[in-house]
Amino acid sequence: MYTLIEARNLIEKHIQTFSIPDTPPELYEPVKYVLSLGGKRIRPALVLLSCDLFSGSVESALIPAMAIEIFHNFTLLHDDIMDRSEMRRGQQTVHIKYNENVAILSGDVMSILATRMMNQSPGVVLQTVQDIFTRTAMEVCEGQQYDMNFEERLTVSEKEYMNMIELKTAVLIAASLKIGAILGGASEKGASDLYEFGRNLGIAFQLQDDMLDTYGDQDVIGKKRGADIVHNKKTFLMIKALEKASPIQKEELNVWLTKKEFNVEEKISAVTDIFDALKIKEIIDDRIKEFYTTALASLEHLDRPEDRKTELFNFASYLMTRKR
Amino acid sequence: MYTLIEARNLIEKHIQTFSIPDTPPELYEPVKYVLSLGGKRIRPALVLLSCDLFSGSVESALIPAMAIEIFHNFTLLHDDIMDRSEMRRGQQTVHIKYNENVAILSGDVMSILATRMMNQSPGVVLQTVQDIFTRTAMEVCEGQQYDMNFEERLTVSEKEYMNMIELKTAVLIAASLKIGAILGGASEKGASDLYEFGRNLGIAFQLQDDMLDTYGDQDVIGKKRGADIVHNKKTFLMIKALEKASPIQKEELNVWLTKKEFNVEEKISAVTDIFDALKIKEIIDDRIKEFYTTALASLEHLDRPEDRKTELFNFASYLMTRKR
Repeated sequence: MYTLIEARNLIEKHIQTFSIPDTPPELYEPVKYVLSLGGKRIRPALVLLSCDLFSGSVESALIPAMAIEIFHNFTLLHDDIMDRSEMRRGQQTVHIKYNENVAILSGDVMSILATRMMNQSPGVVLQTVQDIFTRTAMEVCEGQQYDMNFEERLTVSEKEYMNMIELKTAVLIAASLKIGAILGGASEKGASDLYEFGRNLGIAFQLQDDMLDTYGDQDVIGKKRGADIVHNKKTFLMIKALEKASPIQKEELNVWLTKKEFNVEEKISAVTDIFDALKIKEIIDDRIKEFYTTALASLEHLDRPEDRKTELFNFASYLMTRKR
Repeated sequence: MYTLIEARNLIEKHIQTFSIPDTPPELYEPVKYVLSLGGKRIRPALVLLSCDLFSGSVESALIPAMAIEIFHNFTLLHDDIMDRSEMRRGQQTVHIKYNENVAILSGDVMSILATRMMNQSPGVVLQTVQDIFTRTAMEVCEGQQYDMNFEERLTVSEKEYMNMIELKTAVLIAASLKIGAILGGASEKGASDLYEFGRNLGIAFQLQDDMLDTYGDQDVIGKKRGADIVHNKKTFLMIKALEKASPIQKEELNVWLTKKEFNVEEKISAVTDIFDALKIKEIIDDRIKEFYTTALASLEHLDRPEDRKTELFNFASYLMTRKR
């Protein structure tokens, strides 16, 4: 049985040595660059751990696991173009380091490469695995579209927001677990339970991301607190605050949301004060706990020996206790 | 047996009625828009005709055929962003009609949708079909990268150019035929023969495109002659001319290639005069004929009844006698 650390090491080793074409270098160097930037390799590790829950032959899930990681990195690459982000994992994004055309085309080839690697799944489960993978991949695009739509809008409902983070973040985590389970020979029920575990865990994970931006330990999250507030991002915190605010608080929030020139510290502090007055931290903490508990329940009632589930429980706990 | 016209009608009917998701509309409307613009539907028709060469159940190849067409339209959509093209098939390109982010993301989802549709190939040939499809898709990206690279360069060799058009244009035509053959139950040899037919036909087709830009009948090609000359495109004509030019002719070509301000008609006429003096039209016509003949030979020595090959011969002839 693999531990989380072993699974991540296995992925890291293979993703650095995996053979990606060399020519034309303008196309493939950015792909290698992106994959060299690291990351937590959460999704491929989940494929392996989930496979390991059912079968001992984790090696057969290695290429599909890397396919998920390459797909995930493709989405980051293209999202960074669309969001005009200049930095990713402390390094320049591809469209800044190279140029935008290179970023579009090397992203395209990564997406295809991911499918090509997923096609190395065993024939008996191939159609099922590709069905899950491609449906999920389309959902991730839908999530990104909603996220961009929301930036243009003044108000977003909680329901719309929850749907967006489910599509943009949670379904790929869920699909990683489900694909791993199928590759490991799980029953349909077992695979669905793992999907639900991942879906709820993914939502909890994204909500925690929102919470940490405002309430995280600055030294640990490794970046300044309050970036979402500064950029008027409609996170769960802001949506909930706008929903619960008194007329006066709502007016104050709207002043900050529309002000073109402001002192950054002053804005973060004023908006956080309103969040505090409305007990938004307590609300989001409850919500995170709720999704986390639901996630764990799916894993608990999965019909596998308890000791084989240990690493997935550890993983969930690791994800939710991170400071970033 | 299907005729070419029947095959194209079948594709056209299904591509307009095929169910594409509705939400979010910002993501999927551009997909529907692109597919509504028409086009010759050459590649999916080839899938059907090639399948029909071996088996009567062309309907089973319909979804994979549409997958190829959707993939092809995805490449046009993203190429148009990279090439800053404003018009496609007489209509605005997606990044102009909507915006660039929409064009990137709806292209991404089209590429995934194509794979998802290809995944509906029968299980017994699925892995083979997806292997050909994804390898080809990566090659098409490589071809586009070379094409962009060449724009930045002063000289391109004939060998480099031929490799580029093979990747950018010919392999997808070849793969359409090969995938159709496999879906129809062809032997490996039969499928490879059809690939070679398509590869050589595709190269002939692209070379003819180069030729027609300068020597086509303006009324028939439906656009002004000489666009490639105006934009300094390193087509086969220009590459061959630079290779064969005397020092004086070379200098004159370089003057036109580097001039920032010029009279369009004067430039087209001067460059065409040099092409004529160097007999470039004769050279490219010979080359087109050479690839066309090689293509036909692959089809001729394919082990199928002659009367079943008729529509593919007609197709080849249709492609090569078009004025555009």
